[in-house]
Amino acid sequence: MDEYFMRRALKLALRGAGKVSPNPMVGAVLVKDGKIIAEGYHEYYGGPHAEVVALDKAGDDAKGATLYVNLEPCSHFGKTPPCAPRIVSAGIKRVVISTLDPNPLVAGKGVKLLRESGVSVTVGVLEKEAKKLNEAFFKWITQKIPFVALKVATTLDGKIATLKGESKWITSLPSRRLVHKLRAFYDAVLVGIGTVLADDPELNVRLVKGRNPVRVILDAYLRIPENAKVLSSAGKVMVFHSQFASQEKLNRLRRLGVELIEVPLYEGNLLDLRSVLEKMGELGIASVLVEGGRGVFSSFIKRRLADKLFYFLAPKLIGKGIGPFDEVEVDSLDSSVKIKDLSLRRIGEDVLLEGYVI
Amino acid sequence: MDEYFMRRALKLALRGAGKVSPNPMVGAVLVKDGKIIAEGYHEYYGGPHAEVVALDKAGDDAKGATLYVNLEPCSHFGKTPPCAPRIVSAGIKRVVISTLDPNPLVAGKGVKLLRESGVSVTVGVLEKEAKKLNEAFFKWITQKIPFVALKVATTLDGKIATLKGESKWITSLPSRRLVHKLRAFYDAVLVGIGTVLADDPELNVRLVKGRNPVRVILDAYLRIPENAKVLSSAGKVMVFHSQFASQEKLNRLRRLGVELIEVPLYEGNLLDLRSVLEKMGELGIASVLVEGGRGVFSSFIKRRLADKLFYFLAPKLIGKGIGPFDEVEVDSLDSSVKIKDLSLRRIGEDVLLEGYVI
Repeated sequence: MDEYFMRRALKLALRGAGKVSPNPMVGAVLVKDGKIIAEGYHEYYGGPHAEVVALDKAGDDAKGATLYVNLEPCSHFGKTPPCAPRIVSAGIKRVVISTLDPNPLVAGKGVKLLRESGVSVTVGVLEKEAKKLNEAFFKWITQKIPFVALKVATTLDGKIATLKGESKWITSLPSRRLVHKLRAFYDAVLVGIGTVLADDPELNVRLVKGRNPVRVILDAYLRIPENAKVLSSAGKVMVFHSQFASQEKLNRLRRLGVELIEVPLYEGNLLDLRSVLEKMGELGIASVLVEGGRGVFSSFIKRRLADKLFYFLAPKLIGKGIGPFDEVEVDSLDSSVKIKDLSLRRIGEDVLLEGYVI
Repeated sequence: MDEYFMRRALKLALRGAGKVSPNPMVGAVLVKDGKIIAEGYHEYYGGPHAEVVALDKAGDDAKGATLYVNLEPCSHFGKTPPCAPRIVSAGIKRVVISTLDPNPLVAGKGVKLLRESGVSVTVGVLEKEAKKLNEAFFKWITQKIPFVALKVATTLDGKIATLKGESKWITSLPSRRLVHKLRAFYDAVLVGIGTVLADDPELNVRLVKGRNPVRVILDAYLRIPENAKVLSSAGKVMVFHSQFASQEKLNRLRRLGVELIEVPLYEGNLLDLRSVLEKMGELGIASVLVEGGRGVFSSFIKRRLADKLFYFLAPKLIGKGIGPFDEVEVDSLDSSVKIKDLSLRRIGEDVLLEGYVI
């Protein structure tokens, strides 16, 4: 039954998607005599923790209950008072946890406090699922840079555009709808200036309900047109540029409300991706969906800064064209970039492969 | 129950794979009082038909039984006497058929004979599955050229080899084992001389049990080395060449037992694929698995002569490299080559996409 109730907690946690970052998504379920007596989840950034929401709802009823929560209850003061002492004082008998706090400074402290107070604690129920749910948070909290997913849409023969640059649309509507869902889930989306100039994308959430992510543009020399669609749709836009950007263009973009951040160049004309990610991490961006184009995809792969791939394949062939990683070169098959934990899904007539970059 | 027994008939039919071509694979099941009383299948080219095998086994018991067979029983004399009259004389009450004979000259004649003799006939049970099982036969009998499947193995980013030409191995052992299974199933495998010179493949069946297919090499100028592995392993080898091949090399290859066939050139240095397929069709080859390389794959796609794709994807990225259809060029996404009826399967760590070229 532990897995059953934990699955419910994970489902509740997911309701915080797109709202709690860079906090983790957390759900809590209180169970007594085999029945759920109260539930809660972390609803918005800085809001009350899931455990507290559930305990508040249960009131005195919580005494003797079991608490299911997908992340170790905190033992320290953050934006809210610590949860572990609150659990003890509510008279909870047993706590079931999916994963310990990923922050090495506090990991295990919540569990220790609970156990020392006589609460029985089980750790590791649906741990894999819980880690996946908060994969972005886990990376950001430990490495201080966002979790990076590349969203690639290619023909079956691996092309993101024809030789002439035509890319609208490789995939079908259901796939594009799923991309909008991903945008609502990720803290930010990122593209290179080449994609802005070629496609003039909005990079917002239109095909599903959800909030717009932060739009991030890599634009070393500030070539972005002031009437680019990405600058006009609602939500924050961040443009990363080099020291070689014109001061006048900087001022004009700043007046449009664009956040402008200077980072060093890396190997010629490319912005240093590690600096970009570090800045994003500092600004509380825990996850970013990279949407192209070829140069940006290739750089993330070359610099080993991509964590995950969402690879949409459309059932068509175009032969000559532009490949997503055309600027990557390997010496031999042995040194190819490996993808692990591949999963498959049909999305309308397309196929989605999801995997992690090793 | 019709589908249940027909599924059994299809399973029996499959036992003839690699042995009956260019005849179709046919299975037959005799059912009386809801029980199977006899079964049969077409075992080898020219051998007795499935219905007759089952009727022979059942003897007098066949009277009053229902016959399940995936292809319309024949009404004409071929290599064996016609089956339909035999079914009538055996006293069969009802015949259930998946598909009519694809040969337009005789389609429906078997059914007509049965019905006129008072036998109840149902057509169309598991028709789709039955057509797929004999897709090669259906094409060959109606169009006189073999069914063409391209076997492509690429990285996730669509490359069949690195820039240096390294292609061994893109995919993992389970995928390669499945390719050997396909070779045992298809009448022939076909590669271009480029693949022979680069990889020196054997193109035989080693990783599974099964007979070797006919090996077909496209080699306009007879550049094939006499010590090429493909010439030495057991089974027939056919080399297609142009009028520009040297007579001396022709003689030497003929002495090695190679079957040499001249066809015209098409657009410069390439052999005319339609002529190649027509010759193969005349020689009773109903199906061919095309295994590369890039030039041959591209030509089959450009000339719209490919029916099916077996697309193996390995979970790795190599960036720059050789794409399977690098010599194809489309004007726009609208004119891309569409793949229909895509199905997915995991093969070890790889993914196999199967589909039909529209």
